[in-house]
Amino acid sequence: MKTLNVALADRSYPIYIGEDLLSQPALLQKHIKRKEVLIVTNDTIAPLYLDKVRSLLAGYHCDAVVLPDGEEFKTLEVLNRIYDKLLSERFSRRVTIIALGGGVIGDMAGFAAACYQRGVPFIQVPTTLLSQVDSSVGGKTAVNHPLGKNMIGAFYQPQCVIADTSTLNTLDDRQLASGISEVIKYGLINDSEFFDWLEANIDALKMRKPEALAYAIERSCQDKADVVAKDETEQGVRALLNLGHTFGHAIETGMGYGNWLHGEAIATGMVMAADLSARLGWLEQAALSRIQAIFKRAGLPITGPEAMSAQQFMDLMAVDKKVQDGVIRLILLKGIGQAVISDDYDPAKLQQTLQYFQG
Amino acid sequence: MKTLNVALADRSYPIYIGEDLLSQPALLQKHIKRKEVLIVTNDTIAPLYLDKVRSLLAGYHCDAVVLPDGEEFKTLEVLNRIYDKLLSERFSRRVTIIALGGGVIGDMAGFAAACYQRGVPFIQVPTTLLSQVDSSVGGKTAVNHPLGKNMIGAFYQPQCVIADTSTLNTLDDRQLASGISEVIKYGLINDSEFFDWLEANIDALKMRKPEALAYAIERSCQDKADVVAKDETEQGVRALLNLGHTFGHAIETGMGYGNWLHGEAIATGMVMAADLSARLGWLEQAALSRIQAIFKRAGLPITGPEAMSAQQFMDLMAVDKKVQDGVIRLILLKGIGQAVISDDYDPAKLQQTLQYFQG
Repeated sequence: MKTLNVALADRSYPIYIGEDLLSQPALLQKHIKRKEVLIVTNDTIAPLYLDKVRSLLAGYHCDAVVLPDGEEFKTLEVLNRIYDKLLSERFSRRVTIIALGGGVIGDMAGFAAACYQRGVPFIQVPTTLLSQVDSSVGGKTAVNHPLGKNMIGAFYQPQCVIADTSTLNTLDDRQLASGISEVIKYGLINDSEFFDWLEANIDALKMRKPEALAYAIERSCQDKADVVAKDETEQGVRALLNLGHTFGHAIETGMGYGNWLHGEAIATGMVMAADLSARLGWLEQAALSRIQAIFKRAGLPITGPEAMSAQQFMDLMAVDKKVQDGVIRLILLKGIGQAVISDDYDPAKLQQTLQYFQG
Repeated sequence: MKTLNVALADRSYPIYIGEDLLSQPALLQKHIKRKEVLIVTNDTIAPLYLDKVRSLLAGYHCDAVVLPDGEEFKTLEVLNRIYDKLLSERFSRRVTIIALGGGVIGDMAGFAAACYQRGVPFIQVPTTLLSQVDSSVGGKTAVNHPLGKNMIGAFYQPQCVIADTSTLNTLDDRQLASGISEVIKYGLINDSEFFDWLEANIDALKMRKPEALAYAIERSCQDKADVVAKDETEQGVRALLNLGHTFGHAIETGMGYGNWLHGEAIATGMVMAADLSARLGWLEQAALSRIQAIFKRAGLPITGPEAMSAQQFMDLMAVDKKVQDGVIRLILLKGIGQAVISDDYDPAKLQQTLQYFQG
C-alpha cells in the first residue's frame, strides 16, 4: 500500500492506494471518530461493494442511502435524499459520511457532508479510476444546476481517501478510458516525463495491469495534490487542473448530462485546447499530433459532438465558472507539460477552433 | 457610526452600526471588489428599501431576487431561486451577494453565497433588530429541512455588516420584541451588567429610542463577536449562544415555521432553561423571577404553546443538533450572566419542566 499526504494545514489528509484495501477494517475505522456512519452509494456500486464496506464497521450505527447512478442525478433534489436519511435516522453532527462510488457520489456525499449541520466529517472510497485520480483529491464538491455543471458546491476536505485498486476490475471499458483521460491530463499540465511514460504504457493501462494502474494513480494524485496544496480554493494555479474542462463542460451540458462521460468530454476538450494552442502558435504541430494520438489510443473521442454548433459552444462556455469580466479564461498549452491560464489570446482563433470541432 | 471588528484571522470583518447608513454609497461600495451585485431580499422589504440600496450602486451590474417573506420559505427549494437568478443572469464567481432583510434572508443569501460556484463574497444588510444583533454576526448560514431547523448550512463570513438603525422604524411591534428577546439573551449568557441595563431600559427599547437601540445593538454584537472569535465553528463555548434554542426550536418546529417568531420561541425557551436550572438548584428563585419579568415586560411569551405535549417536546428536541451520544445537551444557567453547557443533569427534572410548560 502507498500513502500520499495532501498537505493543507489542519485540513491535511492521507490517500491510501493499493490492492484489497476494503478488506482492512483498521484502515477505515481509524478515521472515524464516533461510531455513527452513513454510507452514500449508488445502485450500480451497492450490489458490488456495500456489504463489504458495512462488514468493516461491525458494531457501528451504520446506515446506507443508495442513489440512482448517473451524472443526471447530481442535483439538489437527489442531494436532499441524503439529508432525508440523515434526519429521519437522527444522525448527529458527529456522523461520518462515507462516499462509496465514482465522482458523482464523491461530489454529492462530500457536499452533503459539507452542509449537514454546517459540516460533518467524510471519507472518500472512490471505486472508479476517474474518481481515484481526480475527484477524490482536492476537496471540490458540488451538484449541477440545469444552467451549469458544478455550480452549487463547496471546498471541503475528507478525513482520508481509500483508493482500492481491486475495485477497478468491475469497471467497464468506457469508464476505464474515461479515467485514463484524466490521468493523461496530469502529464499534459506539468509532467512531461509522466506523459512519456503514458505513451509507453497506455496499452498496459487498458489491459488493467495492476502495477501500471497503481503507478498511474499514485503519480496523478501526487501531481494533483502538489497543485492543490499551493492553491486550495482556486484563486490561481489550481485553475490549471481545469485543462479541457471549459470545452468539456460545454459538451456535457450541451449533450445532456450522462450521454458523454466526463473523461470523454474532457478528452475532446483537451484536444480542442491543444488545437487552439497550435493555432495561436503556442504549441508545435508535432505535440498536437502526439496529444491527438494518445487520446485516440486510449479509446477516447477527439472530435466534437455531431449535434453541437460553434455558437452553442460559445453560449455554454460563457456561463462556465472560468469567465472573468466577460472574457472566457482558458487553460492552454505552451508545450506538453506546460499548461498556462490565459485570457490574452486572439478570440478569432477560438472561433476557428470551435468551427473546426462543431458537428 | 460605530464600527465593531469581528476578529477571525483572514475572515475578519467590520460591523457598522448607526442611523441612515443606507444613504452612504461609499460604505457599501468599498466592500464590493467587482461591479457585479445580486441583492437578495423579500417581498416585505423590497418595497421599503430595495430602490434605496440599488441607488447606492449606480453603474454596477446589479440585479435583485425577491423571495416570499417568512421562515416557512427558508427551504432548499426557495434557495434554488437564488441560483436560478445567478445563473440565468450569468453572474460570475466574482459576484457579491447582498442580503437585504431579516434573519431568514441573511441565512439564505449567506448560504447561497457559500455554495454558488463554491463560494462568492457577500454583505449583510440586516433590517430587523433580531438580525442586527444575532444572525448577521458569526457566519452561521442555513436552510431548514422538514425534519429540523437549520439542518443544512455552512459557516461562512460576510465581507461586512451594515446595521442601519433607521430601518427599525418600519418594524412591527411583534418583530421588535422578537429582536429584544435575542438582546436579553446576551445579558443572560455572560453579561449581567448588560442585563441590569436592560431591566432599566426595556421601555426605551420598546419605544424605539434611537440611542437605546444603538447601544443595545452594539453591546449585543460585541458580546456575540467575543464568543464567536473564540470558537468560530461551535466546537465549544459558542454553543452558549444557543441558550433557549433547543426548547425554542422544538416550539418553532412543533408549531410550524413562522407561527411563532424566532425571538418569541426562544424567549419561552430561555424561561424553560431558567426553570430547569432552578429545579436543579443551580439558579436562585429570585433570578428566575427577574428572567420571567423582563421577557414579560418586553411583550414576549413565557409559557409553552397550548398545542404541545411534553412528549412532543422530547421528540423534537432529540432531533436537534445539540444531541451528543443520545444525551440532550442543554445550555443552562448558574446565575444571570452565567450560562453553562451541560449534559450532566437529572433527566427527571427536565421532564418536570416539560410537563410544567406543556399545553
